[in-house]
Amino acid sequence: MDAPYELIYYTGVPGRGEYIRLLLEEAGASYKDTSSLPMDKCREAVTAYLSDEYLGEQGNPPYYAPPLFKHGDLIISQTTNILMYLGRQLRLSGSLENDSYRVNALALTALDGLGDEVHDSHHPIAAELHYEDQKEESLRRSKEWIKTRLPKHLGYWQKVLKSAEGLENDKPNSGQWLMGGTFTYADLVLFQCIDGVQFTFPRAMNQARESGKYDRVFGLWEAVKSRDNVAKYLASDKRQKYGWGIYQYYEDNDVLAE
Amino acid sequence: MDAPYELIYYTGVPGRGEYIRLLLEEAGASYKDTSSLPMDKCREAVTAYLSDEYLGEQGNPPYYAPPLFKHGDLIISQTTNILMYLGRQLRLSGSLENDSYRVNALALTALDGLGDEVHDSHHPIAAELHYEDQKEESLRRSKEWIKTRLPKHLGYWQKVLKSAEGLENDKPNSGQWLMGGTFTYADLVLFQCIDGVQFTFPRAMNQARESGKYDRVFGLWEAVKSRDNVAKYLASDKRQKYGWGIYQYYEDNDVLAE
Repeated sequence: MDAPYELIYYTGVPGRGEYIRLLLEEAGASYKDTSSLPMDKCREAVTAYLSDEYLGEQGNPPYYAPPLFKHGDLIISQTTNILMYLGRQLRLSGSLENDSYRVNALALTALDGLGDEVHDSHHPIAAELHYEDQKEESLRRSKEWIKTRLPKHLGYWQKVLKSAEGLENDKPNSGQWLMGGTFTYADLVLFQCIDGVQFTFPRAMNQARESGKYDRVFGLWEAVKSRDNVAKYLASDKRQKYGWGIYQYYEDNDVLAE
Repeated sequence: MDAPYELIYYTGVPGRGEYIRLLLEEAGASYKDTSSLPMDKCREAVTAYLSDEYLGEQGNPPYYAPPLFKHGDLIISQTTNILMYLGRQLRLSGSLENDSYRVNALALTALDGLGDEVHDSHHPIAAELHYEDQKEESLRRSKEWIKTRLPKHLGYWQKVLKSAEGLENDKPNSGQWLMGGTFTYADLVLFQCIDGVQFTFPRAMNQARESGKYDRVFGLWEAVKSRDNVAKYLASDKRQKYGWGIYQYYEDNDVLAE
């Protein structure tokens, strides 16, 4: 299929579209992106797919939320779903058919634990309410998250990378990436998650980094950041600034584990 | 591959393993299931894969949480990932390769909105804390969820089913299921979600049902429930009772939209 790749997502924030963008940039693929449109035009382009009147087309069911991704007749939603499709297209999901399920599991685990959980730290009662209307609960949740979940997540990723190094078991494909010697989109996803959590909880993440306990995890973040295409992209205007979205900074929530 | 299918999940509750079990049962597939073991043996079988010492095997990275699924050398985690793998194996993900991504998007949307969001209604501050330690926040979140999210989710699924009927657009494959005339595992997932939310919030769900606004959604729940293999399974001892897990009942939270 030589149809163009099209990302359909809001502009003004990296958000969930960023994971998809990073795959396309790493692979050097050309793609259209609604986020290059002015704010109001972009919003129109996205919400057209979400209105009550839009009932899908060409066998695609209606969508609940962006990001959406269009490739020929196929228009799909859900970040990890798009990543899995694109990962296969762009050869970023390992070398065996089965690897794509291993990589998808890693991406789901990262996006759930270091994405959705972090989003909910500033919106524990409802995504529909402003942070200011749930400040107290947000502080309580952030403290708990930093105390119990953050070390659990970082410890898990440190373990995956330790396993991938192949020092502890006889993996055939050992190396510095999550899947060993083969770079996959799971590395891009984890990079963006670690990057976003550092924006959200800088004090706790600095402490975690300085502890040395998660050296492989922060090492992966550095290694992905300095890959040629990724570095070029991050330095460009296309990389948007954090603000609203998954990763938000609130000084009150920027705490250390008690 | 004629290796056996093996579900590795806790016993004593339907939980996230249930979505996977329903696929296997619908397809009449034979499978092993750790949940048939006594409680302590089952817990041992599951947690062996989660210990700090377990670093994966045969190219599979370590796991964060169950359910896990084993098929030959492949051992994978993450519910929607397992469903996607099995959906293709058991021919429950549509008729085109592209359909599997459409079905995966539907499954992700259902499990996120009517699974994880519902779980968090009784654990808004932290999954690690007891409900009793976050009762007040739980009530506030439940009220908000029932007011804003429940109608949004049910309305979305009603729209998907309306689209699938093919009355409003020229879908080639119209019918009563989420993907039109073709039954897929997305139908099983939505069935189990609707079933679980009815257990969690019976008053609000009764009201939604009686309103008639979501007749297609509750119709799908009924239609799946009465499929031969599903009905046989639901009537058997293998179907476990709700209790802890994703769907929990708390009288205080059993409210109507204000």
